[in-house]
Amino acid sequence: MIVVAVLALAGAAASAARQTGATPGGHPEPVTVDAARLRQHIEGLSVFGRPPGGTFADGVTRLAYSDADVAGRAYVADLMRQAGLQPRVDAAGNIIARRDGRNPALPPILFGSHIDSVPNGGNFDGALGTLAALEVMQALAQAGATTEHPLEMVVWANEEGVAYGTGLDGSRAAAGEMRDGEMDQVWNGVTRADAVRKIGGDPARLADARRASGSIHCYLELHIEQGGLLDRTGATIGVVEGIVGIDRFEATVRGVANHAGTTPMPDRHDALVAASRLVLAANEVVRAEPGRQVGTVGQLTVTPNAPNVVPGMVKLTIELRDLSVAKVVRLERAIEARAAAIARETQTEIAITPLSHHDPAISSPAVMDAIERAAAGLKLRSMRLPSGAGHDAQMMARLGPMGMIFVPSLGGVSHSPLERTGWDDCARGAAVLLQAVLATDRMTVR
Amino acid sequence: MIVVAVLALAGAAASAARQTGATPGGHPEPVTVDAARLRQHIEGLSVFGRPPGGTFADGVTRLAYSDADVAGRAYVADLMRQAGLQPRVDAAGNIIARRDGRNPALPPILFGSHIDSVPNGGNFDGALGTLAALEVMQALAQAGATTEHPLEMVVWANEEGVAYGTGLDGSRAAAGEMRDGEMDQVWNGVTRADAVRKIGGDPARLADARRASGSIHCYLELHIEQGGLLDRTGATIGVVEGIVGIDRFEATVRGVANHAGTTPMPDRHDALVAASRLVLAANEVVRAEPGRQVGTVGQLTVTPNAPNVVPGMVKLTIELRDLSVAKVVRLERAIEARAAAIARETQTEIAITPLSHHDPAISSPAVMDAIERAAAGLKLRSMRLPSGAGHDAQMMARLGPMGMIFVPSLGGVSHSPLERTGWDDCARGAAVLLQAVLATDRMTVR
Repeated sequence: MIVVAVLALAGAAASAARQTGATPGGHPEPVTVDAARLRQHIEGLSVFGRPPGGTFADGVTRLAYSDADVAGRAYVADLMRQAGLQPRVDAAGNIIARRDGRNPALPPILFGSHIDSVPNGGNFDGALGTLAALEVMQALAQAGATTEHPLEMVVWANEEGVAYGTGLDGSRAAAGEMRDGEMDQVWNGVTRADAVRKIGGDPARLADARRASGSIHCYLELHIEQGGLLDRTGATIGVVEGIVGIDRFEATVRGVANHAGTTPMPDRHDALVAASRLVLAANEVVRAEPGRQVGTVGQLTVTPNAPNVVPGMVKLTIELRDLSVAKVVRLERAIEARAAAIARETQTEIAITPLSHHDPAISSPAVMDAIERAAAGLKLRSMRLPSGAGHDAQMMARLGPMGMIFVPSLGGVSHSPLERTGWDDCARGAAVLLQAVLATDRMTVR
Repeated sequence: MIVVAVLALAGAAASAARQTGATPGGHPEPVTVDAARLRQHIEGLSVFGRPPGGTFADGVTRLAYSDADVAGRAYVADLMRQAGLQPRVDAAGNIIARRDGRNPALPPILFGSHIDSVPNGGNFDGALGTLAALEVMQALAQAGATTEHPLEMVVWANEEGVAYGTGLDGSRAAAGEMRDGEMDQVWNGVTRADAVRKIGGDPARLADARRASGSIHCYLELHIEQGGLLDRTGATIGVVEGIVGIDRFEATVRGVANHAGTTPMPDRHDALVAASRLVLAANEVVRAEPGRQVGTVGQLTVTPNAPNVVPGMVKLTIELRDLSVAKVVRLERAIEARAAAIARETQTEIAITPLSHHDPAISSPAVMDAIERAAAGLKLRSMRLPSGAGHDAQMMARLGPMGMIFVPSLGGVSHSPLERTGWDDCARGAAVLLQAVLATDRMTVR
């Protein structure tokens, strides 16, 4: 067994990370992550999808089902084999490796993330959580530690959803949430079925990838925050309270298109003036109450959109995100009321219709406690926060207790080559993941 | 000589229209327009560019230089020949016909309009003024009346400017305002030079179409109002005070594009929130002072324009129109000041740059008086108003005294198949044009 000597962790955090894994087997060796190895693996994965002639700093374009994705998956699977695991690919294309526990009758602790990226993405989103999961497996093997529950590491397929428009493909398949006909969709000239086959899946037997509700002890995922809260507050570990629900609406503002020279100001039914008031009203409504809810008008199109024509119609999207469904409903009703008043005052018509609804996924309080205690045990400052972005964890929350660990994104930047998380923070996040796995192994999670 | 029996003019207006043309020759016959013939000619022209299987009510698509434009021009030229005129096509493609006056040393009175339309346009914009000009020529011929000044009727080429982006092509050539290189522009795969050749012009000799400043006694044009002021106030004749100047600006609002889920509301630099405030500020500034000035944000584009991304950049156009250059400058400065405050308050950058400037063209007071008296003589209620739309008359104002006559657009609708002007009002407008030609012939205009 190799005792890891080189840790990039500095000061207190470094020594805190060298905790003894109090496994039921009573191994005296410290179970600890190898920060240098983790960094080496992240850097190793970063070459698959790197721009030609670029460096690590140039980020990555590793779209799901692309050749770069296939090569990156092979690299990770090879690392898994080197770590003594036996990776298999399920029917949805997820890479899964199991490490037996002492009690084969118990459901597994599942943990992992994804390695696909957005176009011109960064080297930490997904990659950190995936390779930290590998690090947990490797650290336990090196310590000769055995958990009570079986452990399963997973690399989810097509999390980002750049390909085929929807994301969370692998975890949706595991949760039984793929819809009929999705395998027939075509993107870049390739059916989704062929794309799944390309990464070793079997679209005809997709149901085999499904896991039953209650079939996991819990699900854990380490991920970069993607927002700037941890970076700004100086906390190292984010204990994710849940993944926000996302409600999208489309507002259609109908005025009357008319000549910008011959239509006097009082006679206008200017759809853009009304829409501008609606953009501001939505912003005000969302900011008016305390909490971490967000609301965004991200898309707006004007018709006919000519400098010399009073706008006749504007369509815009309103997206609301919060952990509380009730709050989102309340915000949406307040925006509706403001829209009705704006329509009256501007002599336009405003119709707001729902586009999509995704329920929030709430983290397990017991898992949150375990993560919080793991951070405290490593002398790391933690804070609770919601995840504003979607993650595979939200699908796993349908099958059992779920918890997520966030580490800081410098400047809150993500989905960009500028996405950065300090190497120390990467190792700290992996150490918390390891301790959370060990802690949840000892508890009854619900 | 045919004395016109059938007039669609009703009541007082009809009898008023039967005025005696007090020509210097002292002809006792009434010089009057033939309302039925005018209507017949407008209906006749409407078939060129009519949608297949459509009726008059379906409007017209007679884009400049199109086959429909060529056919419509041939129809009008044929009517001109039937009226005893000898139409010629100048180097810019304008159709011109001269009727000699008693004194060949005098500069001509020029009048006319255009027959090209916007896509899905109406049957009155341009067509009325063109065929009313023909009606003036025909009425004078039938009355055996001779004016002191030579008369010239003109059908201007490409007024609308759908083809090649800029309009007023024929009148710009006459005013010497075509720019170098314009003939090389390509639209729909055809160079402007070839387009001009298609309608009988000679792009190599474009300078031949130019008229010297001071070479016209005055220019008169009858046109539909395109706004709703006459229709709403019940006035029949609009005495145009001038054609407004048009200033266009582009505002670029730069924020920071970011994840709509992970970026807390206080951390956002939302370009669309800032742009919405700017749209409302521009509207407020323009409405804040009395007068007929108009201001429009007609075009607005959001980047990246996705429902789940906080907008990073918005570009929008601000168009200001008024007869007073000083007022437009004042409005623009007020909008600039509001933009600076908005940028500060929203933590964005806003840059406003000029896109284009067109000077206003002021009508000749003497010509306005002549039109006003002509209307009064016909017992028609008139009012003075600016033209918010551009017209060939604005180019002619550079060469000599200019005046325009407006007739009501029902509901203020134009550039639409729904564009309507009552047949009675068409005839009343033509009658005023005729009387204004006769009145300006008798006066020293400046």
